[in-house]
Amino acid sequence: MLPASPPLSDLDLRRASVCQLLHWLAAGRIGPERLAEVHLEAIERIDPALNAYVDLRPALVAEQARAAAQRRRAGVIGRLDGIPIALKDNIDVAGVPTRAGLPGRTRPAAADARVVERLRACGAVLLGKTNMDEGALGAATDNPHFGATHNPWRAGYSAGGSSGGAAAAVAAGLAAAAIGSDSLGSIRIPASYCGVYALKPTHGEISTCGLVPAARRLDSIGLIARSADDLTVLLQTLAGYDADDPRSRHRRVAFAPPDWEPGRLRYGVLPDLAARGVEAAVVDVFERALAKLPEDLGERCRVDFTDWDFARTRRAGFLLMEAEMLDTFAADLADARHPVSARFRALLDYAAGKSAVDYVRADRVLDAATLKMRRLFAQVDVLMLPTTPRGAFPLGGIEPSDHADLTAFASLAGCPAVSLPMGTLPDGLPVGLQLVGARGADLRLLELAAVCASVLDAEPAYPARA
Amino acid sequence: MLPASPPLSDLDLRRASVCQLLHWLAAGRIGPERLAEVHLEAIERIDPALNAYVDLRPALVAEQARAAAQRRRAGVIGRLDGIPIALKDNIDVAGVPTRAGLPGRTRPAAADARVVERLRACGAVLLGKTNMDEGALGAATDNPHFGATHNPWRAGYSAGGSSGGAAAAVAAGLAAAAIGSDSLGSIRIPASYCGVYALKPTHGEISTCGLVPAARRLDSIGLIARSADDLTVLLQTLAGYDADDPRSRHRRVAFAPPDWEPGRLRYGVLPDLAARGVEAAVVDVFERALAKLPEDLGERCRVDFTDWDFARTRRAGFLLMEAEMLDTFAADLADARHPVSARFRALLDYAAGKSAVDYVRADRVLDAATLKMRRLFAQVDVLMLPTTPRGAFPLGGIEPSDHADLTAFASLAGCPAVSLPMGTLPDGLPVGLQLVGARGADLRLLELAAVCASVLDAEPAYPARA
Repeated sequence: MLPASPPLSDLDLRRASVCQLLHWLAAGRIGPERLAEVHLEAIERIDPALNAYVDLRPALVAEQARAAAQRRRAGVIGRLDGIPIALKDNIDVAGVPTRAGLPGRTRPAAADARVVERLRACGAVLLGKTNMDEGALGAATDNPHFGATHNPWRAGYSAGGSSGGAAAAVAAGLAAAAIGSDSLGSIRIPASYCGVYALKPTHGEISTCGLVPAARRLDSIGLIARSADDLTVLLQTLAGYDADDPRSRHRRVAFAPPDWEPGRLRYGVLPDLAARGVEAAVVDVFERALAKLPEDLGERCRVDFTDWDFARTRRAGFLLMEAEMLDTFAADLADARHPVSARFRALLDYAAGKSAVDYVRADRVLDAATLKMRRLFAQVDVLMLPTTPRGAFPLGGIEPSDHADLTAFASLAGCPAVSLPMGTLPDGLPVGLQLVGARGADLRLLELAAVCASVLDAEPAYPARA
Repeated sequence: MLPASPPLSDLDLRRASVCQLLHWLAAGRIGPERLAEVHLEAIERIDPALNAYVDLRPALVAEQARAAAQRRRAGVIGRLDGIPIALKDNIDVAGVPTRAGLPGRTRPAAADARVVERLRACGAVLLGKTNMDEGALGAATDNPHFGATHNPWRAGYSAGGSSGGAAAAVAAGLAAAAIGSDSLGSIRIPASYCGVYALKPTHGEISTCGLVPAARRLDSIGLIARSADDLTVLLQTLAGYDADDPRSRHRRVAFAPPDWEPGRLRYGVLPDLAARGVEAAVVDVFERALAKLPEDLGERCRVDFTDWDFARTRRAGFLLMEAEMLDTFAADLADARHPVSARFRALLDYAAGKSAVDYVRADRVLDAATLKMRRLFAQVDVLMLPTTPRGAFPLGGIEPSDHADLTAFASLAGCPAVSLPMGTLPDGLPVGLQLVGARGADLRLLELAAVCASVLDAEPAYPARA
């Protein structure tokens, strides 16, 4: 007879990966109701200071957990049955307002977003809605209406954005995983600052029906979790053709496992990081991470980015977002009872002064990015670079403008990108390693991310989930 | 012993389909050199009045024909070897200016467009460049710099546009087939007015590298020929992934043959044609064509377009084109030595006054069209409607503004569409039947077009190729 397993502490549950939780649930060591209670208790205790959640309905959470327990007793369970998951507040949940970080959106959503339908069909327990930048336009989650979300590793520091609440909730053990969105880096930037794992899938892989649009050619549902394997499970659960999403399309081939032979990975490393505005400390962590990669991983290849202006990419992406937001948020901008911030209005006013031909010129940068990435991924299997040019910055100061410089071009090209923790900066805060691949290479990137994670062991010394 | 075949007249060659010519070439009944000579002679004789061609280089044509004859003697031939084909003058041919209907573009193109590379690789004999509307913005081919192309069935009437020269050349027997472009109907409208066959393929199927862009989300290479089978051969020869075209993509599955069972075709017919501005005479020809379809073809299904504003679709498409042309033709608009027409400048000035958010709103109509078509093609296999709301109109009068109302929505949705002659209007001029299908259904549409053509026998009484 095997010795009895030791009991699992609340902290064990809040540190565990989705895959680990699924295993414990399957083994009967925990039940969905305890899992929900542990998370609700931790949120109640920790979140007043962290401010990751903007909408939490404990009775609804308990009800979902009871239903999950009932399904488990009946032996009819979904792929994520009982797993507590948080949702960024720009994704529709029927009966709950979708605030998108704006002050006046109090009307409950009429229906679940498609990704929420899929989560429910898999038995996930939806915990609540998480904080974000106003209108998803920013990367600080220092929201003028809902307050700042603090970095779980250091209060007073930004969690990044715009999916800052989602990343902070996962980093702090207040959700097993979270669903956010990423148009120029909004899922990867907070993952980098909060030391968690994120995937922006190939454009169109996960339906964006029920996501408040930022820029339709850039918008992706994004995933945040505490392991690469968790992201794989989430992707396989949530991706798929949706006839109601104009940018969704049938996959040419099923998601494929890694197609490089063992030891034959061709990986490109973004050169001239300092000239790209990457801080020296980040370059240092990046170089040390690369040095830890298995020697037999494959071949490090030279890649050429001298023809590519990262700031121009970012500016083109922002113009597309801001111009489209003028339409998406027209009612909010006109609502005198709930004024948007002066910053948000100024950003959109800038776009209001832009012409149709300015928009066309920005849109053409997407074509250039698509071709750049196609040529790149004819030469290498993956591009490696830091996710962000720096780590988390103090709240209340001036927000850096180049957060998204290293993430935007994958968005413009529609390519998948993963961020995983790559190490700790001298100030003790985490920073992410970004892996970018060709369209459709999502699972290959996640497999490689798991390999990298196994050698990097990059989580900061533990304080965030206490 | 079989009796000797009677000799083929020049007119036989100029009336024949591409498939028939390939058969005669293979059987040795004709050679590429005679085929080229017959066409050059006819162009020299007929085109001064017709004005289908804007650039013809007989020595280059003869050189290509000699090479084709040489290949045939050597027994190493391409799929279109020796077939004389015309090209719309917005498609690059190395060493020849790409005028795009504008006055100042005299610099020779540096390289062949991708579609021209493919034609050459198949052994096609490129005849010359054909007339078009100024900047491809129009549907009359009444060009202020290069003159009007006349309708081959009646001088003084428009050939339609913007690929009017291409359609007129094929209708008049001055080319076996032609390659043009279609952004809102530019290949189908002139095919309807000139009584020939046209295909606008699924968006992205044929590379647009080397095509002067009108609106990248709408632009397609378009094909014109004298039979549906010819279009099939051209499509299979010219389609395929091109890494240099940002909108090209790998097909999920190979082009499929018809997937409806014999007698089980579900076809929808656009209702309320008169309310859509279709002239009574066109409605009459359309109803008579439908009545001729085989009874065992399948089931005529009701389709609902009450939610769809065709004029709004057209206006959205034109804004995308005009805004993008401000960028594409910036140098032409600034060239004081070669002024564009007042009409062209006024159309683009209109777009210059439009904002980025106006562009976004127009662009969103493409999403709506995509969803509309997806829902439609979940219910029916094909949509049938007239190609144009009227037949060819007299040159020199006011150009109708609604030419593209019946063609634009397939462009916005990225769907394939075929036009084939469906009958003759009371004035003796032809008008086209349009078949629209789901993305990727190109070959199915062409197969159906061949079935329709076999019962319609819709060519006007013969004068055009004399």
